[in-house]
Amino acid sequence: MAEEKKLVEQITSMDEDFAQWYTDVCIKANLISYSQIKGFMVIKPDGYAIWENIQRHLDDRFKATGVQNVYMPMLIPESLLKKEGELVQGFAPEVAWVTAGGTEPLTERLCVRPTSETVFSDFYKDDVQSYRDLPRLYNQWCSVVRWEKETRPFLRSREFLWQEGHTIHATKEEAEERTQQMLDVYADFLREDMAIPTIKGRKTDKEKFAGAEATYTVEALMHDGRALQSATSHFFGQKFAEAYDIKFTDKDNKLKYVWQTSWGLTTRVIGAMIMVHGDNSGLVLPPRIAPTQVIIVPIMQKKEGVLEKAAELKERLSKSFRVKVDDTDKTPGFKFAEAEMRGIPVRIEIGPKDIEKNQAVIVRRDTREKQFVSLDELEAKLAETLEKMQADMLERAEKRIEELTTEAKTFDEFKEKASQKNGFIKAMWCGDLECEEKVKAEAGYTSRCIPFKQEKISDVCPFCGKPAKQLVYWGNAY
Amino acid sequence: MAEEKKLVEQITSMDEDFAQWYTDVCIKANLISYSQIKGFMVIKPDGYAIWENIQRHLDDRFKATGVQNVYMPMLIPESLLKKEGELVQGFAPEVAWVTAGGTEPLTERLCVRPTSETVFSDFYKDDVQSYRDLPRLYNQWCSVVRWEKETRPFLRSREFLWQEGHTIHATKEEAEERTQQMLDVYADFLREDMAIPTIKGRKTDKEKFAGAEATYTVEALMHDGRALQSATSHFFGQKFAEAYDIKFTDKDNKLKYVWQTSWGLTTRVIGAMIMVHGDNSGLVLPPRIAPTQVIIVPIMQKKEGVLEKAAELKERLSKSFRVKVDDTDKTPGFKFAEAEMRGIPVRIEIGPKDIEKNQAVIVRRDTREKQFVSLDELEAKLAETLEKMQADMLERAEKRIEELTTEAKTFDEFKEKASQKNGFIKAMWCGDLECEEKVKAEAGYTSRCIPFKQEKISDVCPFCGKPAKQLVYWGNAY
Repeated sequence: MAEEKKLVEQITSMDEDFAQWYTDVCIKANLISYSQIKGFMVIKPDGYAIWENIQRHLDDRFKATGVQNVYMPMLIPESLLKKEGELVQGFAPEVAWVTAGGTEPLTERLCVRPTSETVFSDFYKDDVQSYRDLPRLYNQWCSVVRWEKETRPFLRSREFLWQEGHTIHATKEEAEERTQQMLDVYADFLREDMAIPTIKGRKTDKEKFAGAEATYTVEALMHDGRALQSATSHFFGQKFAEAYDIKFTDKDNKLKYVWQTSWGLTTRVIGAMIMVHGDNSGLVLPPRIAPTQVIIVPIMQKKEGVLEKAAELKERLSKSFRVKVDDTDKTPGFKFAEAEMRGIPVRIEIGPKDIEKNQAVIVRRDTREKQFVSLDELEAKLAETLEKMQADMLERAEKRIEELTTEAKTFDEFKEKASQKNGFIKAMWCGDLECEEKVKAEAGYTSRCIPFKQEKISDVCPFCGKPAKQLVYWGNAY
Repeated sequence: MAEEKKLVEQITSMDEDFAQWYTDVCIKANLISYSQIKGFMVIKPDGYAIWENIQRHLDDRFKATGVQNVYMPMLIPESLLKKEGELVQGFAPEVAWVTAGGTEPLTERLCVRPTSETVFSDFYKDDVQSYRDLPRLYNQWCSVVRWEKETRPFLRSREFLWQEGHTIHATKEEAEERTQQMLDVYADFLREDMAIPTIKGRKTDKEKFAGAEATYTVEALMHDGRALQSATSHFFGQKFAEAYDIKFTDKDNKLKYVWQTSWGLTTRVIGAMIMVHGDNSGLVLPPRIAPTQVIIVPIMQKKEGVLEKAAELKERLSKSFRVKVDDTDKTPGFKFAEAEMRGIPVRIEIGPKDIEKNQAVIVRRDTREKQFVSLDELEAKLAETLEKMQADMLERAEKRIEELTTEAKTFDEFKEKASQKNGFIKAMWCGDLECEEKVKAEAGYTSRCIPFKQEKISDVCPFCGKPAKQLVYWGNAY
């Protein structure tokens, strides 16, 4: 049993060093590998398969709301990027510049897209003439580059994969509705498919997207109590329309500017998934997203009929689930540890005695609960187990948010709670930037969002004593 | 009827000016739009939906052979690119260079990937230790940049979308087999799904991929008789393994270099599809690839019950086909012309009289053949029609290759045939580069491939009189 112990020992305990545990899981579960360039990672088959499942689920949800996919150029001329002042200020310090094409220097430098509002706006300008052409509901799946200083796999990388939706509308109301609708799509997807509950709300002006009138966010809470912004949806008003001259003739025959939104979710959510569900044995994948849902481990596989039975089961179960057999020559113990590291939701053990009794053992990854199941009812039991596991994972994550969310009525109380352990702190706010900066400087917390579900905890802002305007979720964010 | 005539008149006749016809179709069928940067195009929803279907079909075929998807960094350090001499010579003149990240100049410039052999090789170096780790069968879907001088939508653009497969193997035989296998996957996909027949063969040394030991290709023939290289599969031998030090311990305990392949297919095949199947009314999409297979056009739609019936049919048919209804306030004639421009395989016309008779009219896009069909057997007739259309499109394309392929025994005959009209010319070849260059200079043709199906047309090379080594397909290529 030394071998499998070694595999598990390869990862640091999360209680000892959470950051190291996270990196260990990324590497040992075969999700990524570092490349020669800082902040650029290789997403390996096991990591990419998770992303493919995320894409499929989310893309279906987008298309169900009428969204169409497109592809925009990855390079953006500097002059085009600069047309909208706030956006360029926000992104200029972190874009990569292309200055030569082949052997010749370019007359104008081009940036590798950090986000594509500018390119979509430039496109929409000629794409839309009349109210009949609206709305345009476009999305693209692509990679973007932002030259971050500190980098960590999935959480903050210089290149990452994402989707960016960009829509334009005839009316303010419709654009605002779409901004909310896509935030709901994200929240539902995270909750139903990834088993990640989130707090929905609006970003403060300090934390909103460069160039947006309003940014909405879904904020998740990791195992270590730190917060993670999991997706955002932006309402731009007519800012880009004015800067890029996107006009249409309305029903009343008047020329008007369009109303715009954008919304995005990145490979970052894989990091969230690891940190919400993982444990000291490695990854735990939500069954709906897991590339392999069931792994069959033959026991005493050299005995006659065992490998054949495993192959037969795989064939049979593949009609209903994503199934693999581990028929390598490793020991069963090693295979168990490896399957746990990879987060496969359910493993099936089947050996000569099981075959004799027409049964198998099924083991849940999260609780390690074992069940002896008749082969005749294997499909039903697996479906039930996977569904239960998905629901339990969500419930545990919800419970964690509950446990790690506290309230503070005074700044002293706030600082004390923030210093004890991480988690959300709910506290009122006057709405002033100075208070946000004070919280950051003295407690290390940032405003995560102004939640849609408002409560009144105190009458005054605990940071300045002025009348409170709204409740804010504060957190120590990734 | 003036309106719909206008729509069709917007495109140039293919007999008049094929190049202009092609560009007109790309624009008027809403596939692309130009961007501010030469050679960078916007792929619009109708164009991208075709690419999504291509991806789905091809990705399924890849995965069925054991291929796994990954994602590699889009930027490559210059020093890494330079490790293999031939590749860098081939690509250096056409890569885009990133020289600054944020506000700081980089210490080493990075190129935007033109292809990823170097990055995969660098990754494989540490990913593989033992023969047990082999083969690695990886693929990625991404965009690449090559700074081309002349650009045309889909056919030659500075940024394009593609998949690039990169595999490594323990033995030469296995790598060679994989190279052939993937060429077969491409040929089957093009034939079965895109209705594009191709000539399979090997590239001459002059035309092969920079750094490859052997390049295999599938060559298609367009409506105008010009050839188009539609996908390629490369055998690298151990060249990259040696340059990037990719070694493994074999069963005999000896350290050996791996054997490598790569293979790719790009958005170029959308261009091929347009030029193989299109006509003077616009696009003609193969039913298997068409994002919308059936469009329902209500006739006299203001009459009671017509739009309801159209919606009911859509609902019903969507269970078996990809269906849309055009219920806009355009005239039926305009809707017909628009559906034809977009290449939708089958249109259904349904009006008050049809409803009375419990029938509909179905019209094939390619032949314009009309059938009156009872609503009770609509599914069966549609399935039959789509299948027949797919088969007929392939047959027509095959017939065209046959008609436009000739033989030449002498250089004079070759030149005469090449000057008359485009098409493949089959002629023997001695194997010397000088003869290839002479053919290019005097007849404007290049070697397309040394076909797997060899024939003996003459004993000597028609270009120099030396003994002939093999048959070559020559063509005027895109």
